[in-house]
Amino acid sequence: MEEKDIVNTTAEELSSAKPDYEKEIASIIRSNASPAQIKDKLLDYHENDIAAALDSMSISERQRLYRLLNIDELSDIFEYVDEDNIPTYFKELDIKKKAAVVSEMDADKAVFVLQHLDKKTRDDLIELIGNDARRDIALISSFDDDQIGSKMTTNFVLIHSTLTIKQAMRELVNQAAENDNISTIYVEDENDVFCGAISLNELIIARADMPLSDLIVTSYPFVYAKEDIDDCIEWIKDYSEDSIPALDENNRLLGVITAQDIVKVVDDEMGEDYAMLAGLTSEEDLHEPLKQSIKKRLPWLIILLGLGLVVSSVVGMFETVVAQLTIVMCFQSLILDMAGNVGTQSLAVTIRVLMDEDLTARQKFGLVFKEGRVGLINGLILGILSLVCIGSYIHFFKGASILFSFSISLCIGAALMLAMLISSLVGTLIPMFFKKIHIDPAVASGPLITTVNDLVAVVTYYGLAWIFLIEIMHF
Amino acid sequence: MEEKDIVNTTAEELSSAKPDYEKEIASIIRSNASPAQIKDKLLDYHENDIAAALDSMSISERQRLYRLLNIDELSDIFEYVDEDNIPTYFKELDIKKKAAVVSEMDADKAVFVLQHLDKKTRDDLIELIGNDARRDIALISSFDDDQIGSKMTTNFVLIHSTLTIKQAMRELVNQAAENDNISTIYVEDENDVFCGAISLNELIIARADMPLSDLIVTSYPFVYAKEDIDDCIEWIKDYSEDSIPALDENNRLLGVITAQDIVKVVDDEMGEDYAMLAGLTSEEDLHEPLKQSIKKRLPWLIILLGLGLVVSSVVGMFETVVAQLTIVMCFQSLILDMAGNVGTQSLAVTIRVLMDEDLTARQKFGLVFKEGRVGLINGLILGILSLVCIGSYIHFFKGASILFSFSISLCIGAALMLAMLISSLVGTLIPMFFKKIHIDPAVASGPLITTVNDLVAVVTYYGLAWIFLIEIMHF
Repeated sequence: MEEKDIVNTTAEELSSAKPDYEKEIASIIRSNASPAQIKDKLLDYHENDIAAALDSMSISERQRLYRLLNIDELSDIFEYVDEDNIPTYFKELDIKKKAAVVSEMDADKAVFVLQHLDKKTRDDLIELIGNDARRDIALISSFDDDQIGSKMTTNFVLIHSTLTIKQAMRELVNQAAENDNISTIYVEDENDVFCGAISLNELIIARADMPLSDLIVTSYPFVYAKEDIDDCIEWIKDYSEDSIPALDENNRLLGVITAQDIVKVVDDEMGEDYAMLAGLTSEEDLHEPLKQSIKKRLPWLIILLGLGLVVSSVVGMFETVVAQLTIVMCFQSLILDMAGNVGTQSLAVTIRVLMDEDLTARQKFGLVFKEGRVGLINGLILGILSLVCIGSYIHFFKGASILFSFSISLCIGAALMLAMLISSLVGTLIPMFFKKIHIDPAVASGPLITTVNDLVAVVTYYGLAWIFLIEIMHF
Repeated sequence: MEEKDIVNTTAEELSSAKPDYEKEIASIIRSNASPAQIKDKLLDYHENDIAAALDSMSISERQRLYRLLNIDELSDIFEYVDEDNIPTYFKELDIKKKAAVVSEMDADKAVFVLQHLDKKTRDDLIELIGNDARRDIALISSFDDDQIGSKMTTNFVLIHSTLTIKQAMRELVNQAAENDNISTIYVEDENDVFCGAISLNELIIARADMPLSDLIVTSYPFVYAKEDIDDCIEWIKDYSEDSIPALDENNRLLGVITAQDIVKVVDDEMGEDYAMLAGLTSEEDLHEPLKQSIKKRLPWLIILLGLGLVVSSVVGMFETVVAQLTIVMCFQSLILDMAGNVGTQSLAVTIRVLMDEDLTARQKFGLVFKEGRVGLINGLILGILSLVCIGSYIHFFKGASILFSFSISLCIGAALMLAMLISSLVGTLIPMFFKKIHIDPAVASGPLITTVNDLVAVVTYYGLAWIFLIEIMHF
């Protein structure tokens, strides 16, 4: 790449100026170089890029690569293969190599790979996997998907608190061959109980005659492997650590949650929240089969249809109002949409706040009070806007009298303000209520809020129209 | 903690069984022990816990802590202080100590702290900050908030490619005193151009007589500091690395994006998406002042009000239909809500897919086709459900004839199906269109989709009602 070419370039140009590693890797495999040369060149690339490049190779090219690399190198690459390709590539390895590759993987990655193979292959493989790997895989599989233990890796460095600095250093070098997560070294006492952590760079710069205990942060943060992810992920994030230890009930170290795991968990958790807000039962991706997409979306839609019928029958109670004064019907969608929008805003804010922090009763009250005020002020602003705009619109475009036009727009403005205030409160109180009774507020709140807000908006609007426009003004 | 107490406990009990570090820290500061003892005990805790404990201390207790600890220790703690408390705690330090603490921080943290101080303090501080720190702070501040360079840290280990393994090890030990991110060691060539990375554990276990070049992954992934976060974050995530280097236009290493930075960026990006979907201009938290909350929500609401008026005037065109057959009006909210729900589902799926992957034209077409089929099938199912349920409801509860009841419910079912199909397509095409013309689809799509779907639903429903019920059936 020429220097001149990329000075003063835009972000997009920069991004496209980056080398296409996948292409390079594929062409290395296709080249006529000697196996040793090919292998040498391949190992200059990141495993993630090699894994991605497999997709653009033919079966025979991939098999050439499998033969060139040793088990260690292959298993590093297979840790990066995405779930859709796992079954295909694994089929191309013979059963012994499969078992060896899975045995070499980090246990959490191995669990992921096994989950994406068919039952028969999985059972065959587990038979052949080494004892250590099998134990680790069983450990991680023993946790539910929503327990933090299911996300941990057993790849960590653990030393005894009684070592000297020199011994600790030697132990680290020994364990570094097997474990990559070496930037934090965990310490256990003589009863195998977790008792703290040492940061690798402190160990590296320490004088050899210092006692090891000077380096140990004894009150290092930890989680229990059985804790719910929802309950501890925000807390884990705050420490900005390379890894956080996960303990069993007897305070023994089972595994660690690395920063990479945290990225994945945060991504998943927020993806779930996002999906829930959109009325999906869980996140979808591009490769999702049609049937599964339908299954993910249909449940909410059916519930929403049922709740929509409730709203419709309430609207039906105001049929006489509409029959006498059809013009009010035109603005029903406006009031309902606005109430819905405001409710969703409050819902989204409340769910994120409930997720992030443990609120005291006082803070909860403060949040409700604040959302109420936001709803009231926004409602006032929009109500006045509607009063002016809609009144003028009816007067000038529909040719109605000023009194009639502004009576109707006053009714719309007032209904809008009231509906927005109530929707804000409903959007805050409902998720709090679900949280209180231990139901995930992100799941349950959406449809209920839409329905309650629709009902509130309909009753407020048609109620006002009936009392003010028909009973008082006699239009 | 007794072992027996926590065997067979629930996740919640486990989580509450954890020690309350903040309380412990506060009581250490309040104790009558000698300063040396207090300091010794304090340093056993994680900086994040000490930072959190500051909140429960009085000013004089905090000042005691500031006196006890040295600049290095204080700056580590201040890196964890949350934004709301930064101004308060900084006011309690004298100006020299302030400058020293900020100089010692990672540059990205220092930038964050400076952003949360008032302008006067900030300007005073920048005068007093050491040259190295000032240069790093200026570098990071030079990037826009949406460029990846604004999230990088200048805390990394960089060595020359010409070193031997032994020299590299010595260089690492030297730099480890200043830099914590040592698990990946970056390598530059004789022209200071970035040329690869070495993983620390490979360096540790390497034989001293190996050439250093054997350890260097020369095609290590990197980003340009000027790239947009949106464009590269998904890509960075895939590598699951402890850190990814950020280069300038001349391929010199400027900083690194650590896994901790990635956690924050992913959290922020998804939080933004979530907020956008809910019609907020950006994420809000508990401590947001009222005025700001209103400002974040009002813009969308005003736009939505304007668009709602457009829908209302289209509904107005069907006033005669409603005047003749008021019962159809009852189900308007149902059709509009359902079309809106389906549109939001498609929108959410499309935005996540567009965010995660670079789609080929073929994949885009596939996505539209799939969303269309999902919409059609769900529409068919719900349409048939409505036909049966609503027809029976009108017949049995409203006492209308079977012909009349099921004509109306047929019209509703058909409109529902059509509206759901079209809404799915609209929900997929609109974000794609915005992406194409380089407007963030998450920002712009929501209100437009609501409006288009409302219009589609209104026209389909009342149009069908008019043609079928009034013109053909003559009800």
